[in-house]
Amino acid sequence: MIEVTPQAVDDMMDWLSGISDAEGPGTTRLLYSPSWIDAQEQLKEKFETLGFNCEFDAVGNLFATLKGSEQPEEVIASGSHVDTVTKGGRLDGQLGIMAAYMAIEKLIEKNGQPKKSLQIISMAEEEGSRFPYVFWGSKNIFGLANKADVENIEDANGVGFEEAMHAAGFDYLEGAPKFNKIAAFLELHIEQGNYLEKEGKQVGVVNAIVGQKRYDVVLKGQANHAGTTLMEYRKDTVECFARIVTQGIDKAREEGNPLVLTFGRVEPKPNTVNVVPGETLFSIDCRHTDQAVLNRFTAELEADMRSLAEEMGIEIDIDNWMDEAPVPMDTHLVQTLEEVCKENDLNYQVMHSGAGHDAQIFAPRVPTAMIFVPSIDGISHNPAEHTEAKDIVPGIQALAGAFEKLAY
Amino acid sequence: MIEVTPQAVDDMMDWLSGISDAEGPGTTRLLYSPSWIDAQEQLKEKFETLGFNCEFDAVGNLFATLKGSEQPEEVIASGSHVDTVTKGGRLDGQLGIMAAYMAIEKLIEKNGQPKKSLQIISMAEEEGSRFPYVFWGSKNIFGLANKADVENIEDANGVGFEEAMHAAGFDYLEGAPKFNKIAAFLELHIEQGNYLEKEGKQVGVVNAIVGQKRYDVVLKGQANHAGTTLMEYRKDTVECFARIVTQGIDKAREEGNPLVLTFGRVEPKPNTVNVVPGETLFSIDCRHTDQAVLNRFTAELEADMRSLAEEMGIEIDIDNWMDEAPVPMDTHLVQTLEEVCKENDLNYQVMHSGAGHDAQIFAPRVPTAMIFVPSIDGISHNPAEHTEAKDIVPGIQALAGAFEKLAY
Repeated sequence: MIEVTPQAVDDMMDWLSGISDAEGPGTTRLLYSPSWIDAQEQLKEKFETLGFNCEFDAVGNLFATLKGSEQPEEVIASGSHVDTVTKGGRLDGQLGIMAAYMAIEKLIEKNGQPKKSLQIISMAEEEGSRFPYVFWGSKNIFGLANKADVENIEDANGVGFEEAMHAAGFDYLEGAPKFNKIAAFLELHIEQGNYLEKEGKQVGVVNAIVGQKRYDVVLKGQANHAGTTLMEYRKDTVECFARIVTQGIDKAREEGNPLVLTFGRVEPKPNTVNVVPGETLFSIDCRHTDQAVLNRFTAELEADMRSLAEEMGIEIDIDNWMDEAPVPMDTHLVQTLEEVCKENDLNYQVMHSGAGHDAQIFAPRVPTAMIFVPSIDGISHNPAEHTEAKDIVPGIQALAGAFEKLAY
Repeated sequence: MIEVTPQAVDDMMDWLSGISDAEGPGTTRLLYSPSWIDAQEQLKEKFETLGFNCEFDAVGNLFATLKGSEQPEEVIASGSHVDTVTKGGRLDGQLGIMAAYMAIEKLIEKNGQPKKSLQIISMAEEEGSRFPYVFWGSKNIFGLANKADVENIEDANGVGFEEAMHAAGFDYLEGAPKFNKIAAFLELHIEQGNYLEKEGKQVGVVNAIVGQKRYDVVLKGQANHAGTTLMEYRKDTVECFARIVTQGIDKAREEGNPLVLTFGRVEPKPNTVNVVPGETLFSIDCRHTDQAVLNRFTAELEADMRSLAEEMGIEIDIDNWMDEAPVPMDTHLVQTLEEVCKENDLNYQVMHSGAGHDAQIFAPRVPTAMIFVPSIDGISHNPAEHTEAKDIVPGIQALAGAFEKLAY
């Protein structure tokens, strides 16, 4: 097993997260911004110093390749996204790039040149934080994004996507993608949840990324005086909402993990103490790793909502505006990661990812898996996002172990 | 029974509701404003034409008295508030003044001078719409309001209460109140609820005004990622809120009328689709005519909320910021009104008032009762507030019948 010191991890993350458009706390490195350009350039330099061959693709994904001695065409790749949200943490995305670098650096020290090629990918964009478009980086690796998707979108300052891209020296992908021949892709990421921390595990071996459905629901009843309207004459949309939530969450708990159900947004009208709320808008976010279960559960939830509303004489409008399929990881790669953890006494947990990641763009196209390291309190997209460096090391060791098995 | 035509009611209400500070729809006649002064002056003139002796008290309540022939010191009074909310309806408050006028006008035609005195009171203020103080009119009749309550309050334009009062030609009450010797007080008002309409009744005989308690409750759990946080690791304050509402409303329905329970305001944080809400503020409004029931029910509700929160590991802060006692009406006057309705074949319903009224200031001090006329859909404090004139007439007849029994 390679040895990585917590200090080395901290130094690396201090360096990269310090490249930011704005003063801290937190890192702000939006797509095609000055700090984004700076980060990609400095990463290229760092990778070249270690003997990598570095190349940007058309849109600005950085590929750093260490050529294999025997099967150089077999590319074992790892990486994540270099962009951050506004005032993001120091680990989301960028840790995946540096973890690949630190793992390969130590493997070269230990074993020299690999037989197959090892590649670090510093992906241009995943967050959708500057422009309303996500996975611009990973989608371009496989030719899945195109001009029509972005040519009319702008950032908050009115700068067009195309204008920003051109100013950074990049352009649309034309013709066939160049870097999509990958034998295996591994992405290390912070969990952004509290499961590993709660379970006291060092490493998460991700076997699937959840599918998710999101809804906006509007209930229309009748606004009434809270004092003069007897209970039997009410069409109280907050009461209806409460019955939907109570029944829905009871059923979600009955269904069990990995199903999650969240009613995050609630907006009654007129939202005042002495009026029975005549209208309530609320959101639903429901996720599961199994499409069939997700479909069955949400179909039942929709039917339950309709009958609860009908019983109360309340109109209901259900808008399912997001429907993303679950993405299973490659079974063989998951096994490989499990073996590495077992052989090296890493306390691991096979688990799913409840959030989306670049890996979900790779997984349907090339063998893909993910490694999670714990997140303190699950906090992310926030300057308070943190994991002690000593708790990041086991993840890097697992990644290095997988590289060793796959490329040496 | 006196005869009042719907046309006469409409003409009267068109006239009075037309005296407004602002363009319609709706009437805006705030305390001590030009239209308020105008309305009180025009009412005085109208009452004097009918032979009433008119007098303002210190703060601007208008008393119009028709002296009794045998027991003039026995004053049978009726009336309501002349102020409106901003863009209020044409009936709230002002109908009670005009109903008394129309009833007495017809009684004089029918029976001449009463034995006891009949009095119309056009009260200065009830709504608290210009300044943050309610019942200024009725409280001053009994010397229950004083300088300290209002000397530091301002309207939305920064005009002080005292300044507005002085500009209108009025001042604080000094010494003992002059018009508080009332043998009986009857207030006719629109129901502002939909009970009479739903039950198909012409007249409501009010036997009590509800007591009410209002709360702000804050739940503090933990904000978490909606995808990465398993159900068992959540402290979801919207779930806790929903369980409180569902259980609370189930128990309210079990308790039965006249208990009402409303959760009108809900504000989760951060109030977004993909975050488990870490904090939720909500309001409670609970009313009942029986103080003991109200106390028992809300004590149980508070205990239930605490245990639901505790079970979920959620902190709860309960602030009971309003606690007003129920006000029973005078049993004898309620009986008198029932007799009048029976004798005149008025389809009546003994009921409580779920809203507050001037009568609640009178009731603990002088024998008091209220008459309700239906409100279409219970709509009030809104230009859409409406009752067909033909559905107002029976209430005026009931009032006249009571005057006849009490004063002739």
